[in-house]
Amino acid sequence: MERPERYHHGNLRQALLDAAEEVLIDGGIEALSWREIARRAGVSPGAPYHHFADKAALLTALAQQHLAELDHRFREVCTTHPEPHEQLRALGMVYVAYALEHPAAFRLMFRPEMGSPFGGASAETPVFGVLLQVVRACRAGATGDPAETERVACAAWGLVHGLAALLLDGPLAALATDRERVRALVATSTDRFNVDA
Amino acid sequence: MERPERYHHGNLRQALLDAAEEVLIDGGIEALSWREIARRAGVSPGAPYHHFADKAALLTALAQQHLAELDHRFREVCTTHPEPHEQLRALGMVYVAYALEHPAAFRLMFRPEMGSPFGGASAETPVFGVLLQVVRACRAGATGDPAETERVACAAWGLVHGLAALLLDGPLAALATDRERVRALVATSTDRFNVDA
Repeated sequence: MERPERYHHGNLRQALLDAAEEVLIDGGIEALSWREIARRAGVSPGAPYHHFADKAALLTALAQQHLAELDHRFREVCTTHPEPHEQLRALGMVYVAYALEHPAAFRLMFRPEMGSPFGGASAETPVFGVLLQVVRACRAGATGDPAETERVACAAWGLVHGLAALLLDGPLAALATDRERVRALVATSTDRFNVDA
Repeated sequence: MERPERYHHGNLRQALLDAAEEVLIDGGIEALSWREIARRAGVSPGAPYHHFADKAALLTALAQQHLAELDHRFREVCTTHPEPHEQLRALGMVYVAYALEHPAAFRLMFRPEMGSPFGGASAETPVFGVLLQVVRACRAGATGDPAETERVACAAWGLVHGLAALLLDGPLAALATDRERVRALVATSTDRFNVDA
């Protein structure tokens, strides 16, 4: 697939990232070679080295890009939904939808050899930082300890992360293409999870 | 590592599975070669072919073995805990503990190229079948529809599966070695999830 038009804008780096994501979707991480990435981006096999030191650097950049995009969507949810419990419910939907929309990138973020592109679970980390803020807002009236609030945020993350993983690569895969059933499953899950103190 | 004593009992098949799990733990699936498996089991490189047609067959057998063991532990929980809500709480602990105890096998069960060794999510499937039965017992008095009961069971699975995945290969990995924090996180998660109608 030749896409020479992209490089008129000097956007080879992005084209390489897009090509890598395509290769991951089609053949998984085992199929990922410089040759194949360059072929899909329509450039010479040596071209990727101008932008990435090695495959690990390219994969890290791809994971970071998706993390930033998911963080952006999380922040959008908070501006479009005024009430924190509604925000939390919407975040769950966005998280699972993102995983199903970008399966290769989502798997990549959680590959054992990738380390954690999230960089931990604190108020400063992308995606989780937003979740923690929303859980805190839900529990604003609570006199509970901050450790419990953090556990609740981790549990809320676990809930939707587990659904995403089971739908993507687990025994719930047969459900994943049925939008309405996925919505109902995520809604049941978040509605039944009590964040309050 | 030579373990000739094992084969006096004709247990080469099990020795090969154990060796494969060791290779997975040390080097991940990329390091898995017949040569390395045979070396660790202390047999000739051709020996594995007497038991497994190919690597995929060996990995499937390994996943099935762990699935059977996890199913066994789930059933044990149900005999040692009489009350269904207590059973559910204990199942969550067992699930996360098993993932942390057998990280390579747990990852293997959910690798996209493995298909689903669970074989779906129904009353007949191992592990999930036990979970569904316990969720039904928790909701015994409920007049809710069976589809909601199934969603609740899937959500309960998602909850602990997500925690296991985030602890194993995600941003919660730093917590995974702290038994007490893991226990507290799983307890918070399951206590806050309402299975009842």
